[in-house]
Formats: sequence, structure tokens, C-alpha cells
Amino acid sequence: MLKAEIIAIGSEMLTPFRSDTNSLYLTRTLEERGIRVVAKTIVGDDQKELVRALEVAFVRSGIIICTGGLGPTVDDLTREAVAEFLQVPLILDPELLQSIEFRFRERNLRMPEANRKQAMIPQGGTALPNHHGSAPGVYIAAREKQLFLLPGPPFEMEPMWERYCVARLPQDEPVYRQIFRIAMMPESRVDELLRPVTSELQETTYTILASVAEIEVHLLAPDRAREEAQHAAEKVRKILGNRIFTEGLERLEDVVGALLRKARRTLSVAESCTGGLLGHRITQVSGSSAYFERGVIVYSNLAKIEMLHVPEDMIARYGAVSAPVAITMAEQIRQISRTGLGVGVTGIAGPEGGTPEKPVGLVYVALADEKVTRVERYNFPGTRERIKFTASQAALNLLRLRLMEP
Amino acid sequence: MLKAEIIAIGSEMLTPFRSDTNSLYLTRTLEERGIRVVAKTIVGDDQKELVRALEVAFVRSGIIICTGGLGPTVDDLTREAVAEFLQVPLILDPELLQSIEFRFRERNLRMPEANRKQAMIPQGGTALPNHHGSAPGVYIAAREKQLFLLPGPPFEMEPMWERYCVARLPQDEPVYRQIFRIAMMPESRVDELLRPVTSELQETTYTILASVAEIEVHLLAPDRAREEAQHAAEKVRKILGNRIFTEGLERLEDVVGALLRKARRTLSVAESCTGGLLGHRITQVSGSSAYFERGVIVYSNLAKIEMLHVPEDMIARYGAVSAPVAITMAEQIRQISRTGLGVGVTGIAGPEGGTPEKPVGLVYVALADEKVTRVERYNFPGTRERIKFTASQAALNLLRLRLMEP
Repeated sequence: MLKAEIIAIGSEMLTPFRSDTNSLYLTRTLEERGIRVVAKTIVGDDQKELVRALEVAFVRSGIIICTGGLGPTVDDLTREAVAEFLQVPLILDPELLQSIEFRFRERNLRMPEANRKQAMIPQGGTALPNHHGSAPGVYIAAREKQLFLLPGPPFEMEPMWERYCVARLPQDEPVYRQIFRIAMMPESRVDELLRPVTSELQETTYTILASVAEIEVHLLAPDRAREEAQHAAEKVRKILGNRIFTEGLERLEDVVGALLRKARRTLSVAESCTGGLLGHRITQVSGSSAYFERGVIVYSNLAKIEMLHVPEDMIARYGAVSAPVAITMAEQIRQISRTGLGVGVTGIAGPEGGTPEKPVGLVYVALADEKVTRVERYNFPGTRERIKFTASQAALNLLRLRLMEP
Repeated sequence: MLKAEIIAIGSEMLTPFRSDTNSLYLTRTLEERGIRVVAKTIVGDDQKELVRALEVAFVRSGIIICTGGLGPTVDDLTREAVAEFLQVPLILDPELLQSIEFRFRERNLRMPEANRKQAMIPQGGTALPNHHGSAPGVYIAAREKQLFLLPGPPFEMEPMWERYCVARLPQDEPVYRQIFRIAMMPESRVDELLRPVTSELQETTYTILASVAEIEVHLLAPDRAREEAQHAAEKVRKILGNRIFTEGLERLEDVVGALLRKARRTLSVAESCTGGLLGHRITQVSGSSAYFERGVIVYSNLAKIEMLHVPEDMIARYGAVSAPVAITMAEQIRQISRTGLGVGVTGIAGPEGGTPEKPVGLVYVALADEKVTRVERYNFPGTRERIKFTASQAALNLLRLRLMEP
């Protein structure tokens, strides 16, 4: 496999507050062409360290991508470091200077003298236009290696990479990657269920990645082993069935949105412990107004009583965090909103407010439609943030499963 | 300043799906002792590359911290790479073996043969106990450098670092760091306003970090320049005034929550384009039920009319995204909920739904209390996600400013 590596440049990425994220995007596009990232280095705005990173990279990899350090300030040293490392001069590109000046003129500004520096290119390099900022990129083929210098901000870097760099990359044997995303199952359970398949893989790599309330399974194979991987994927589908919510990169809310759209059904939600997060996730999907009618965040008992007609004595008897209250929330919001489906979520997000009978993490999720009302009880571990997210995930998954029924 | 660097080991961090986050935690604790992280390297489970990373690190830094690669599998090669690099043998530590065996016995399990490898320590090293997993850490002082080998999972790494490593670090001159966080101002404007102060700094480093709808300003100085930095901080306070929402690490919703609590006021919200995000952020704060009464997500026009009594002809005349509708939403939710404050947010989150008169990113935020009703109009750039977040930020900031008035 062809080897690439990424050098991220910027002192802010050596603070406790920022990390490099550009490399994730770059890695994805490299992988699509069968190119493997073998190392990532993060250095500050420090010419000496950048030269050292380039030395190591040129020994190791055929493709070297630097992000950052192309701005107009004295801290921006990528051009200088590359020129020093390759032992070539920096040369003013008059055409490039014009295009930078033009960018400023367009906005009725005079180009500050500092920006002149951005028109300097290490000899032998080609400028890469930046349509979203003043820092041009640079492409250099040197010592039988390919070197790309890209700006740091993702909204400048990504379009430049897509438009002016990807076509310059070699194409190695493509990699076959099959993804499965699973909601509401523990990692160890998925791993165990898949063991009969994964233990027999020869050339296919199996990876399981866990994030909050979501498991990703990856099968990765060189093109020659595609058949083995596809065969394994077929078995994974049989084992996990509808617990897989997507084989792509969609979020759970995208999948639920597509199902609602396809079935031409509408939705309303009544949230207590999720506090609006469920509505937020549903409305993260562009076009969600086609199916999402409204929601209520009934955080107080009074709000539950007034807005959803939850009987006061039901709360007194069972508590606000209970199956009857969740059911009433789902049925009432559905009725008030005249939507096809209604969802209710009530629970204890913590870290305060738990009792021995009703501990932090106890959550009830209910779903009502014209045929059935369902309620599920969960005990979620973790922080307030995690419990809220997992509760919203449970609600979306309950919706998904209901919408998939014939 | 003393120099440290971090090597993160693990092939998963070279995929498009995972990145190193341990280094942020480590950087924070190093900085507290005046130690500066000068580089970070991420390599796969590859002995040769790890040796190469160690070679570079030992040239550059006095403190080298490796995370990951200490597990029991053949992929876990950190011990082997360190032994190869230092040219020392791996030696079985019988006491360590016993403690690993004990961990398994405790859970009624037999230690798999593979875990024996975790009791092997490069000669000259000291084992660091792991109270949260089977992989012990290692500390080695060699070639006048300090080398720490730590496990990859944060919940194993962090306690080990805190308990067994921090005390071994040298203490350099402590660093003085002053943070300011500012909402709803463009980075360039903050930078410009502060130029008279920042251009005169001698020993203090000024950094400005921008994320969505939030700017962070850092003043960083060695202890000897503390006075200069404090003097500059005083000037920053004067220039930015109440546009600074915190000098700590609180989120804007934490600050608003504290103000509501202190003033013993209650809050309700009516959201359209934010779709629940505002409620979600308010309820991310533990104890928010003390002041957050309820919210409505009036996504459809019908919901606005039915739940908030927005007059139908007001929507027909001004549109659902308009100042009168935002005002009505804020006033009505406040009245219905009988809270001290009410907030209304309506806008076009996009990417569809914009018109020349009402483009994507147009957002109205209104606030009502017993004395005043205010409404603000914004044009936010960016994606749906960004517009939703910025709108929620604007609402929280409007609340904050109102609550700060005498």
C-alpha cells in the first residue's frame, strides 16, 4: 500500500484546548484511493521542528501533507521551512500576488504588505488557488515524493484538497470497507455475537468502535479479498438484522427522518429529561419540517400537567419518572399535535436527583401511534450529558423500529 | 521552558474515525508545571515507526510520554519498541505478574497466557500500577530523559498519570494563564479592539482562538512576567467589558444558569429554528430544573398559532420568521408558563427555505420579562448546524446581558 503522512502545523494544537481534526478528513479521502496514513505529527509554529518533521516524513512516506502555517504573519513558517528543507529559494509568483490583491480589492480593501508573503512559493512548486481565504496552497513534487501544503482552516483546506490535490494522487489497489452502525447495544455483546464470523477472517480486518450509545463495525479488505469481506458482511447482516441502523455514514436521526418521509408520517415529541435534545437531533436533518410538527419540553411537573394533561394524582402515585407518565406524554402530544406518531421521554439525568428506587440514569421512553402505545424502561450509566444523549438515542431507535414494521 | 512531547500509539488513530485526545489532558497537567509540549506524534501499532518516533523525541525533548500499545495482544508493541530503542532486554517482573494474576483471580478468571507479556518491563524501568485495567505503565529514566509509558484508555491513563507520574516531573517556573471567553463577536473585531494592548506585550503570549459563535483570548506568561500579563488582563477587561462572559472554563449556559439562580428568576423558551437546542443547552446544566420551567418547539406555523396564540394574520403579513412573531413567542411562552423570563427564537436554518428577502441564516431572537421586550435580528453564515448553534448562543447571550443589568 502507498504511504502518506500528515503534518499539522500550529502552536494552538499543542495547547490543552485544540487538536488536529483536518487529518480525519484527509485520511478518509486517502483511504478511498488505497493510500494508508502511517503517521501524523503535530508541531508548533517553529521552523526548526517543521524541518525535522519533514526530514522524518520524507524518509517514511511517498505523500506528505502539511496543514497550516500559510497565513501572512511572522508565525506562519511553512513556506520558509519547506524551502529550507528542500534547499530551494522562495520565489515571488506575480500572478498569485495579483490574485491575492484582487481578493482584497473585491472587498474594497487594500492588501496589507504582510500578505505579499503569501505569494512566495518554494522554487519548483505550483500554487493551489484558495477560493475561501487569502492563503494559497502549494504542490511540490520533489525527491520522488509528493508534498502538499494546505491552509489550516477546514473550510479553506477541504475544497482546495478536493479540487486541486486529489487528482494528483496515485491510485493504489482500492480498499473495500464495509461499515455497519448499530444503536443501543453494548460493544461486548456485538463483539460476541459476531465472533463466529470475525474469528474466521483471513485477509479482512475487523474493527469495532464504540461511541456513546452507538457501535460501529468495520470490515476492511484489500480489493483481492473483497469476496471474503462481502461474504462476512452478509453473515453480519443475518446476525444483527434490524439492529443495524445504517451501512453508511447517516446519523440515526437521518435514518428516522427518511423512514418518516417515505411513510408520509408526522411526528411530535414530549421531552422531560432530554430537555430539547431529541427535538434538536430530529431538526438537525435538513427538510425535517416535512414530518416534525412540534415538541414540548415539559421540564417541571406543572408543565406536564398543564401542557399534556398528565393527571396530578398519576404523578403523585407513580412519580414523574414512570411508565404511566411517559405513556401519557406520548399519547397526549400526539393527540394535541394531531401527528401520526408521538414520543414521550422522562428520566433522571443526574448527577443529582436520584433515589434508591429511582436512580440516576433511569429513563422511560414511550411511543404512541394510531395502533399501539409502547414504553421501554432503561438504566443508563454515565454523566448527565451521556444519559441525555442515550435517552434521545433510545427514543429515535424506538421510532425507527416501529417505522420498519410492515 | 522544559520540553515534553507525546507519542500516541494505535492504528485506530490513523483511521478517519478516531483521533488522539489523551494529549489534551496531558498537556494541561504539564502546562501547570511550566512544561511545554513541543510536538505530538501519532503512529500505528508498528514497532519500526515507534522506534523512529522515540529517536526523534529523545533528540528534542526532556520528557517523553507514550500512550497506548501496552495491552496483551501481538499488536501491542510499546514495550518491545522501547527495549529495542534503549538497547536493553525485557525482563519479567514477578511481583507485577502476581498483581496481574490477582486482578483476574479477583473476578474468578484465569489469566490468559497472553497477559504474561504485560509483566515484562524494559530493564531499568519501574512498573506503574494500573487500578482500572490490566496494562501496567512503565517509568524509565534514561539518557538524562524521562520516559513514561501509559495505557491508551483515558480512564486507565488519567488516574495512573495523576497518581504515579506527576510527582516525578520536574517543576519549572509555573506559567500564568489568563482566559477570556467572549460570545457573539467576530474574531477579527476582538483582535482589533485588543491590538493596543496586545501589540505592547513583551514576555506575554497572546492567543486568540475562534470556535462557533465563541472567541477565546489567552494571555500566557512565565511567572516572572506575571505582572505584565495581569496588567494586560486588566486592560482587556476594560476594553471588552461585559462582552466577556467568563474568565474560566464555564459554558455560556452555565453562566446564564448561575445568573438565573442568583436572581431567583425562572425561564421558559419558545423555539422554532433551533428545534430544541436552546432547551437542550439550558438543561445541560445540572440543577437547571431550579430555574427552567418549560419550553415549546413550535416548528410548524400551526404549532405557533395553537400553542402560543401567534395571530394567523401576523404570520400571513410578516412571515413566521419576523420580529413580531419572535416577540409574540417570547411574550406568550412567558405568560403561559408564568416565568420571570421568556425567550423566542425563529429563523431559517437552511440549507433550503431561504428567499432573497429572507435568506438562510436570518434569525430573530426575542426576550420578554416583566419590564421589557427586546428583539434582535441576525444574519448568521454557515451550515444548518452552525446557524442553529449560533442562534442558541445569541439567545443565551441576550439572556445573560439582561440578567446582568442592575
